[in-house]
Amino acid sequence: MLKFDKEKTLENVKGALALRPEINAVVDEINTNGYSNVMWLGIGGTYASAMQVVVHMKERSAIETFYENAAEYLTTGNRRVTDKTLVVLSSVSGSTEEIVEAVEKIKKEVGATILGFIDNDQAPLASMVTHLISYPTDEQLKFFMVADRLMYLAGEFPDYDEFYKEMDEHFANDIVNVEESADAFGLQFAEKHHEDDIHYFVGAGNQWGATYSYAMCYWEEQHWLKTKSIEAPEFFHGMFEIVERDTPVTVYVGEDSQRSLSERVANFLPQICGNYTVIDSKEYDLPGISEKYRGTLSPFIFHAINNRIDAHIEHINRHPMDIRRYYRQLQY
Amino acid sequence: MLKFDKEKTLENVKGALALRPEINAVVDEINTNGYSNVMWLGIGGTYASAMQVVVHMKERSAIETFYENAAEYLTTGNRRVTDKTLVVLSSVSGSTEEIVEAVEKIKKEVGATILGFIDNDQAPLASMVTHLISYPTDEQLKFFMVADRLMYLAGEFPDYDEFYKEMDEHFANDIVNVEESADAFGLQFAEKHHEDDIHYFVGAGNQWGATYSYAMCYWEEQHWLKTKSIEAPEFFHGMFEIVERDTPVTVYVGEDSQRSLSERVANFLPQICGNYTVIDSKEYDLPGISEKYRGTLSPFIFHAINNRIDAHIEHINRHPMDIRRYYRQLQY
Repeated sequence: MLKFDKEKTLENVKGALALRPEINAVVDEINTNGYSNVMWLGIGGTYASAMQVVVHMKERSAIETFYENAAEYLTTGNRRVTDKTLVVLSSVSGSTEEIVEAVEKIKKEVGATILGFIDNDQAPLASMVTHLISYPTDEQLKFFMVADRLMYLAGEFPDYDEFYKEMDEHFANDIVNVEESADAFGLQFAEKHHEDDIHYFVGAGNQWGATYSYAMCYWEEQHWLKTKSIEAPEFFHGMFEIVERDTPVTVYVGEDSQRSLSERVANFLPQICGNYTVIDSKEYDLPGISEKYRGTLSPFIFHAINNRIDAHIEHINRHPMDIRRYYRQLQY
Repeated sequence: MLKFDKEKTLENVKGALALRPEINAVVDEINTNGYSNVMWLGIGGTYASAMQVVVHMKERSAIETFYENAAEYLTTGNRRVTDKTLVVLSSVSGSTEEIVEAVEKIKKEVGATILGFIDNDQAPLASMVTHLISYPTDEQLKFFMVADRLMYLAGEFPDYDEFYKEMDEHFANDIVNVEESADAFGLQFAEKHHEDDIHYFVGAGNQWGATYSYAMCYWEEQHWLKTKSIEAPEFFHGMFEIVERDTPVTVYVGEDSQRSLSERVANFLPQICGNYTVIDSKEYDLPGISEKYRGTLSPFIFHAINNRIDAHIEHINRHPMDIRRYYRQLQY
């Protein structure tokens, strides 16, 4: 299977899940000291992950939590952020300019507690955060583990132990098997859409952030294919007027609280479009995981499927995904 | 001048500004009774206006305020919304399904105070809100007047009276003159871009919501032209990789706190693109308005300019902007 190392992927996910005691030690301490709200700070792909975890929390929690774009924080600021705020961020390189500057500003002006998932623990950013956890891959899972612990401690996630028992026992194997089983679909999808003039991606709920970033950080940035992403309920408030018979539209239908919003798009599309794809997380098994937790895990299913699409588009287009024409190539 | 009734526009803006005593009576009462946070509820165009007012408030305020998509509120809910919340919304028709249902849910489950700007005061929605203000046009101005009064009462806008003295004396005339003076530009822009395969719009700060809705609710919904809108800082985190010599890109450069983010895009574009347009609010006079207030008013300048673009695209394309192929035409 193209660009797929089953053992390595399995090891990555298991390693991320094994971070939980380390994450909990930090979160429990923060909770004991008290905090007023939680800001998820990001830009580009990490901004998108921040959007996802905020929706995830909103499903259960009364904790004040919001996402913030690092560049916007640097200019407009956010007066809800104080020394009682918990800031959570993630950075692979530890060198993203806006994130580094935002952390400097938070430390200098506010003194909030900062939990940073920074893969490169040699980056200066790694020594700037209050609490550092350094482990490559699985950003969304790390964010969800922080959110879940916060909600557990707030009494909003009574079945936390039950959920993570299932996760520890089954999730890594399940999600790797999803990726494997999605390969034929990924090839078929790539063959059909690798030359699209523009591709529309529709998502909702905890998949909206991932829909936004898959379109932008993968198709635009890495495949150099034009896209537009749209939140499912917004599709009906303007965007759909440009959809015609041959317009390529993909809808992610997850199993979280906003499933009905994506289903509405999926159910409507056949009336006006002959080139649509519905990707429904329900079609993929997660043995050992209870039905009630599948909504939380839908984005991971979609991520595994998208990986297969990417591998095949990359090969068909002979366009290595590592090439950038502008990003970190030019001055801006 | 095409599709421009100067006297009528002037009268509309003056009428909106004259709502201030009515708005303040409501807001002052809510403030006296106490509120914990402010939710701006919308969908489509009104969702975009909600985004704008939240950025406007973040520039000055420590009040907890956020925007919420009505469809997402109906599914995921928002536990920050309680009987101490002030909900603000706007609806022209009063019949937007998601807004009506969200108001029903808020009344039934939460009992928050709801201030509704509902143009059609005969719509059932008009009798469902706690406080009704009914006046056509100028939604953004109405939202800003609510926000400004809240911030004034919280001690965050000490020069409120000074600002509104200038607004009452000069804004209506100024903004109508901006629209008139932008007509030649609007024609030239429309002639160049009325057949674009796709047009990219970049915005930031209090113009981001308007950038999103101008692209979606005008070009897509009313002109049936493809667009993508992007927040200025996000442009550099993926999207820009698909920009080439002939890609049409328009950047709104306003004078609010995030001006530098849009400027960065405007300054970079000439390196990679030969088909870009920078629309800078600074190029338009607002006589009688102090420099320090121009940031707040930038979105109104852009709105006036966009009106001219629309009038000319509509005529050149012979595509009346009132036509919808799907919206409220089909079942979905």
